[in-house]
Amino acid sequence: MPENIVTAEKLQERLVANKFNAWMGLRILKLDEETIEIGMTWREEMISNPQARITHGGILGALVDVAGDFMVAAKFGTPAPTIDMRVDYHKVAGPGDLKAIGRIIRVGGTFSTAEAQVFDAEGGLIASGRGLYFTGALKK
Amino acid sequence: MPENIVTAEKLQERLVANKFNAWMGLRILKLDEETIEIGMTWREEMISNPQARITHGGILGALVDVAGDFMVAAKFGTPAPTIDMRVDYHKVAGPGDLKAIGRIIRVGGTFSTAEAQVFDAEGGLIASGRGLYFTGALKK
Amino acid sequence: MPENIVTAEKLQERLVANKFNAWMGLRILKLDEETIEIGMTWREEMISNPQARITHGGILGALVDVAGDFMVAAKFGTPAPTIDMRVDYHKVAGPGDLKAIGRIIRVGGTFSTAEAQVFDAEGGLIASGRGLYFTGALKK
Amino acid sequence: MPENIVTAEKLQERLVANKFNAWMGLRILKLDEETIEIGMTWREEMISNPQARITHGGILGALVDVAGDFMVAAKFGTPAPTIDMRVDYHKVAGPGDLKAIGRIIRVGGTFSTAEAQVFDAEGGLIASGRGLYFTGALKK
Repeated sequence: MPENIVTAEKLQERLVANKFNAWMGLRILKLDEETIEIGMTWREEMISNPQARITHGGILGALVDVAGDFMVAAKFGTPAPTIDMRVDYHKVAGPGDLKAIGRIIRVGGTFSTAEAQVFDAEGGLIASGRGLYFTGALKK
Repeated sequence: MPENIVTAEKLQERLVANKFNAWMGLRILKLDEETIEIGMTWREEMISNPQARITHGGILGALVDVAGDFMVAAKFGTPAPTIDMRVDYHKVAGPGDLKAIGRIIRVGGTFSTAEAQVFDAEGGLIASGRGLYFTGALKK
Repeated sequence: MPENIVTAEKLQERLVANKFNAWMGLRILKLDEETIEIGMTWREEMISNPQARITHGGILGALVDVAGDFMVAAKFGTPAPTIDMRVDYHKVAGPGDLKAIGRIIRVGGTFSTAEAQVFDAEGGLIASGRGLYFTGALKK
Repeated sequence: MPENIVTAEKLQERLVANKFNAWMGLRILKLDEETIEIGMTWREEMISNPQARITHGGILGALVDVAGDFMVAAKFGTPAPTIDMRVDYHKVAGPGDLKAIGRIIRVGGTFSTAEAQVFDAEGGLIASGRGLYFTGALKK
């Protein structure tokens, strides 16, 4: 596994230069050589079913994508275009901040694979998944 | 394939009772026995890369999920919890409204599978994917 | 969509030069600009659950992969390495020959996406899915 | 996470009662509360590209599916029907035995999610993926 080539501070700048990430209130909580932890600030507009007041699956999918991509970014210096993604929804998330943890599965010459898990404040596993990122145009 | 048991008007009400769907400006453009077309109103907060001004993959994933789920809803009367989802990103989407078309792949007793495609205003295929929905608790 | 650049006969030769494809008794039943149909000859070793005598999911997954890849091959002249794949299992398949139909979702410069469905002799939809293929090293 | 309720010996019997698993020469190498390791005996018929002599992606997909499912089986007493599966192909595998390691991602009431990695004899990561299994009809 290549070493991180960018600091958490630099990644945080890039993270929220992305307007939808900023809207989700994303912030890097922790970064080491293996994992990135990204916090999300819940907001009312994220609600899916209004009676059950659960968080929209699209938000959970976005978290999986971003957490995987920013662990890739730690290795390549910048996030890479997502080619495809799978998300598994494990448990409904009520109103409340969430945390996503991203890890690299494999760094490759043309594309790289990463996975991520999304947790609620109680540590419950809400969703998990994996994405494929086009890293062929980036330098390792 | 079972017949639709709910009108586009009823589905539209349910669609935007969902606050994140309302935030995305979703509206049902067309519904028949085979397909549902859902329009999305672009907004500045959907931007991912701020230089390239492309639409965030999380938004595209949400569109695939919602379009699949609301075709399921046409058959079952209400949307069903998403169990898992795959999204393929085919082309970047610049600022502009998008359209998603959902179709059923299979209606089953416990879970149902649907697919969706996302198009830009020029008809370019931006993303596509498929989701698995838990329809076991709903009546056909 | 680019035109096919290879005949069904040429593709059939390539199909069964692949030893596992030959073991599955694969043969191209039909090829046009949109779809490829590939037949599979059932064999006893394909059984999964021995009491229920159902066909192994690994065989169904292989069929989805091969049908998608050989529709890609029709456009590029040769099959391309599979990068990733999703398979949905819709219905168990008892002993009996199967048929897979592959279609292109998108032809791209670096990778292409295809989908496939697997049917039993009665026309029942057994499985379906989609694969991503690395076509960057091939000429269109 | 529930405890294993079946021994490796019992699982091995069930593993190779499955004829395609027997054809792949599958055997349980190790089982603990977290992981199952399954060895595969390579055979000539598993070859995909005959010049490059690489192992067919369908075989790798079957390994991911089986390793995930048999870790589920350790928790439920018997393997469960696969609902869907994703496989990522990381590296080509030349002729030679392979090993798959399965882990549970989540045990649920109606369905459970597991992941698996496939390694070659040198420890290279060949493929990885995740499957969704219908455990609703089984007792935990």
